[in-house]
Amino acid sequence: MTYAAPIRDIRFSLEEIAGLAEWRRQGLFLDASSDVLEQILYEAGKLASDVLSPLNAPGDRAGTDLTPEGEVITPKGFAAAYKAFVEGAWLSVSFDPAIGGMGLPKGVALAVHEMIHAANMSFGLCPMLTLGAVEALTAHGTPEQQQLYLPKLVTGQWAGTMNLTEPQAGSDVGALTSRAEPQADGTFKIYGQKIYITWGEHDLAENIVHLVLARLPDAPAGVKGISLFLVPKFIPDAQGNPGIHNDVRCIGLEHKMGIHASPTCTMAYGDQGGAIGWMIGEANKGLACMFTMMNSARLNVGLQGVAVGDAAFQKAYAYAMERKQGRAEGWTDTGPSPIFHHADVRRMLMTMKAKVSAARSICHMTALASDLSVHAKSSQAREIAKAREELLTPIAKGWSTDMGVEIASLGVQIHGGMGFVEEGGAAQFYRDARIAAIYEGTNGIQAIDLVSRKLTMDDGAPVAALIEDIRATSLACEQSGHEQVKWIGKRLSEAVDVFSDAAHWLIRAQAGNAKRDALAGATPFLKLAGDVIGGWALAKGALVALNHLKDKSRDVSYMMARISLAGFFAENVLAQVPGLLSSVTAGSDMLYAPQIDALAG
Amino acid sequence: MTYAAPIRDIRFSLEEIAGLAEWRRQGLFLDASSDVLEQILYEAGKLASDVLSPLNAPGDRAGTDLTPEGEVITPKGFAAAYKAFVEGAWLSVSFDPAIGGMGLPKGVALAVHEMIHAANMSFGLCPMLTLGAVEALTAHGTPEQQQLYLPKLVTGQWAGTMNLTEPQAGSDVGALTSRAEPQADGTFKIYGQKIYITWGEHDLAENIVHLVLARLPDAPAGVKGISLFLVPKFIPDAQGNPGIHNDVRCIGLEHKMGIHASPTCTMAYGDQGGAIGWMIGEANKGLACMFTMMNSARLNVGLQGVAVGDAAFQKAYAYAMERKQGRAEGWTDTGPSPIFHHADVRRMLMTMKAKVSAARSICHMTALASDLSVHAKSSQAREIAKAREELLTPIAKGWSTDMGVEIASLGVQIHGGMGFVEEGGAAQFYRDARIAAIYEGTNGIQAIDLVSRKLTMDDGAPVAALIEDIRATSLACEQSGHEQVKWIGKRLSEAVDVFSDAAHWLIRAQAGNAKRDALAGATPFLKLAGDVIGGWALAKGALVALNHLKDKSRDVSYMMARISLAGFFAENVLAQVPGLLSSVTAGSDMLYAPQIDALAG
Repeated sequence: MTYAAPIRDIRFSLEEIAGLAEWRRQGLFLDASSDVLEQILYEAGKLASDVLSPLNAPGDRAGTDLTPEGEVITPKGFAAAYKAFVEGAWLSVSFDPAIGGMGLPKGVALAVHEMIHAANMSFGLCPMLTLGAVEALTAHGTPEQQQLYLPKLVTGQWAGTMNLTEPQAGSDVGALTSRAEPQADGTFKIYGQKIYITWGEHDLAENIVHLVLARLPDAPAGVKGISLFLVPKFIPDAQGNPGIHNDVRCIGLEHKMGIHASPTCTMAYGDQGGAIGWMIGEANKGLACMFTMMNSARLNVGLQGVAVGDAAFQKAYAYAMERKQGRAEGWTDTGPSPIFHHADVRRMLMTMKAKVSAARSICHMTALASDLSVHAKSSQAREIAKAREELLTPIAKGWSTDMGVEIASLGVQIHGGMGFVEEGGAAQFYRDARIAAIYEGTNGIQAIDLVSRKLTMDDGAPVAALIEDIRATSLACEQSGHEQVKWIGKRLSEAVDVFSDAAHWLIRAQAGNAKRDALAGATPFLKLAGDVIGGWALAKGALVALNHLKDKSRDVSYMMARISLAGFFAENVLAQVPGLLSSVTAGSDMLYAPQIDALAG
Repeated sequence: MTYAAPIRDIRFSLEEIAGLAEWRRQGLFLDASSDVLEQILYEAGKLASDVLSPLNAPGDRAGTDLTPEGEVITPKGFAAAYKAFVEGAWLSVSFDPAIGGMGLPKGVALAVHEMIHAANMSFGLCPMLTLGAVEALTAHGTPEQQQLYLPKLVTGQWAGTMNLTEPQAGSDVGALTSRAEPQADGTFKIYGQKIYITWGEHDLAENIVHLVLARLPDAPAGVKGISLFLVPKFIPDAQGNPGIHNDVRCIGLEHKMGIHASPTCTMAYGDQGGAIGWMIGEANKGLACMFTMMNSARLNVGLQGVAVGDAAFQKAYAYAMERKQGRAEGWTDTGPSPIFHHADVRRMLMTMKAKVSAARSICHMTALASDLSVHAKSSQAREIAKAREELLTPIAKGWSTDMGVEIASLGVQIHGGMGFVEEGGAAQFYRDARIAAIYEGTNGIQAIDLVSRKLTMDDGAPVAALIEDIRATSLACEQSGHEQVKWIGKRLSEAVDVFSDAAHWLIRAQAGNAKRDALAGATPFLKLAGDVIGGWALAKGALVALNHLKDKSRDVSYMMARISLAGFFAENVLAQVPGLLSSVTAGSDMLYAPQIDALAG
């Protein structure tokens, strides 16, 4: 089956839950009107359904090939699809019109990217990395660099990559050893090997702009001695067109469990005398520059969890409507019932839908916070929004991708035996989804970032503001006068209290020099936070739906379904939040008891 | 790395937690002495480590092939490994000496099979199915059938299969349409196509004995019209040796996500005039006969969850000890620390170990209940044990295999990028583990079996007896005088109360004609039950460990570690049990609200 873009769900989340509609009323983001949004989502949805989705399974089967010359051959049809993507200018949605963008909010760009990832996650990675390169160059490039590279990158005519990882330097970026030697002409010669470089080499774009972390000769050890370099595959000639081939080559492709159509490359820099590179930003400040890309990439990876989850949901829903087995309790027609009518299958589908919806709204809230951090009217509002974006980013990445794996696994389960057979198609989502919890900082790294950096920012003010917002929603639910929404409010209220307790325990632990205890609770806290914020998002949706039901202005059954979705999440996820507290606050003694080693053998 | 059999863990679980040691003291299972057990596990562990484990990754890469003649070619080395398996008589551990078995408890056989599955799950499936065929023939075959087939099957010289599924008949076995036509000589001609037949055709054994479900011409519709037939690949000649090829052929192999070395066959019966078969048991009672195989197979599949989980744990543990990244909090040596020292990695490893241990003990308790149902001294004790076996079987299957998937996923996560790359080896466990939650009755089917058949057996007496046993353990923990064990007791006590509430709610719902509500709560209840019973098993282990610590008779650090393991499980799993209650008791209204359909598009 072909992916169908969930335009209604995306609009409801972006406008009604993440608040785009409200910001419009306050005079912001007026270019992103309802009509514009509808049209963009419709057109992007067409690209996703008609062009990218049909290539997903064939791309998985075909994979990519590396020629002896170091060229990567992508699966059949990908080059044409990429051309259509470039022609549609889909990369440029949220970029400044000054550099050729559409100037729309990031939230809108995110909505477009969801569709692309859902239709074909392997494909989506290529523009996702280019997106990051544009952001890094926009923020840190020299005017010359920007003038030369941005116009080509913004269209996707040239592609971008991120080169961090080396065999000994994964999560520990500071351990990297690639070298950059300054040349008399102001350029640098880059030497070293990078691994796990997504779309490091391919035949889709005219040129590939590698952003590479490396060390200057006199650089300090660790993360404070890393600089960022721009290393184009083809060095632009005087006219800015791709010129001679730089000394960078793909020397190997990984054989992976999933995203087979996305080449994961080992890149060799400087094997033939040195790759020519240009420094981006200041010397030894490369990691900060790279973080400009990484924060955006982390949100986009979170969105991949949403995307692959929704694709898995759609496939499982279609299968459940079609596949007939047994007679469901209460089924009165003759013959077997579609498995959709079995309670256990409906539970799985509702779980998938509720969690996809919650994760989508977490990502949208993060994106709109990022937009507000630039466009809000007061500097105070911009600062608050920036803090909200930073607080939510690791949750958007970590929670959404963990959910993506869980949801894809439920999709397999609904398919039964056909879920384990590759031709069924559900298996690919399960395999593809798994990487998103690993790359762009493993989810463990996200949890550590959340607990040790984000919770403690500004004496905990950002998390306190978030808790206040959640409490306002739970109160509004409790006062709604609607039985089910009141109940949702009660569950949310209990859950946010636990969230607050957990957050304060972690802040205190770190203030009190019990850092290891806080680290031991980081992953359960990220889950707890995502559960609560996801439940909050759905509860906001239920309140909006309730209002729409009162004024009968919108599709009644959809609005009733939004309330059911929030109710289901409240009973099945929020209700479990109190039970997570002990995992957060148990400390690290149990983990570090010396006799644990005795369990190994 | 090579799998190392966890003999100490298995013995601790089987003897101390599941109670083999206690039963020996009461005069049962005396043949399964400590020495015998140790020796068997040591020898089986050698086969697993030296022969089967080295074939696991190559077998995954190579997969199986089907020749135009319908012969299945297994990966290199499998035939020799199977020969070693047959020579070691590893299939016969728990069979009656009268048919050539060793006469040891099923629990011991299960321990052997864990090692085989952990080392090579694809391989392990072949003897697992033969095991089921032996049990079905032992219980339901005629003396002639038993005499002809059992001696060959018990050694594994001949292999067995189970043929239930047809394209339209998966979970709904009653929908099958394969036909059996009675012949004048008392045999039957079998016609039909079966799919998803594990090891349906291969080159490991001299002959393959297919147990096939089919309908007699006058059979009633549904499950009451199914009979079981024995259809040998080669019809035994007068001397009982493989004779002419029967009219059964493999006509296709599935391309699966995992267990690549295990051929999953489409089998065609009777394409050339009719396959010759013999009826096993009574006409139209085939499903009951097949359930003899399935109950045993379900427990063995549950054990696969344990096995693949333990293999994933071992691999992740070894990687965590070797891979160095960053400097863990509290790390004082120079240079980066092995990731084992990071709190988040330790949490993942502890989670893996605790859940593997809990699932293993649930399986062992189920197996020993099965043994007691045959060997206990009084008929009352045998009946009680039988009910315990039946109650625990769906939990052993469903909970252990869900855990297997979760644990294998954590194994991938610990490996980081290397977890997603196939050469890392962690990915195979994640792919292989996924099938165990599907075959032998999906875990949804297990949950329905648990709730609608097992809970309500004998007016709920079996579950009441289980709850009583768990409460006795929680009380003993609370009275232990040891701080951590007391705390474990408290958590277990709270959790078993919730288990009891949930079970009674489900029993009442079914008595009160709210069957759909009970079905809606079935899967969360299975999880809840497994969490509590797993926590109970580990708590029993903690009490035993405490005793051993007092008399200093056993490895002190291992015993301390067992207490830590139970403590960790209590804080991280038992503590979450109360939060599951609302998922069990929420009823089905939310799932069947008509507007749910509005969420699809």
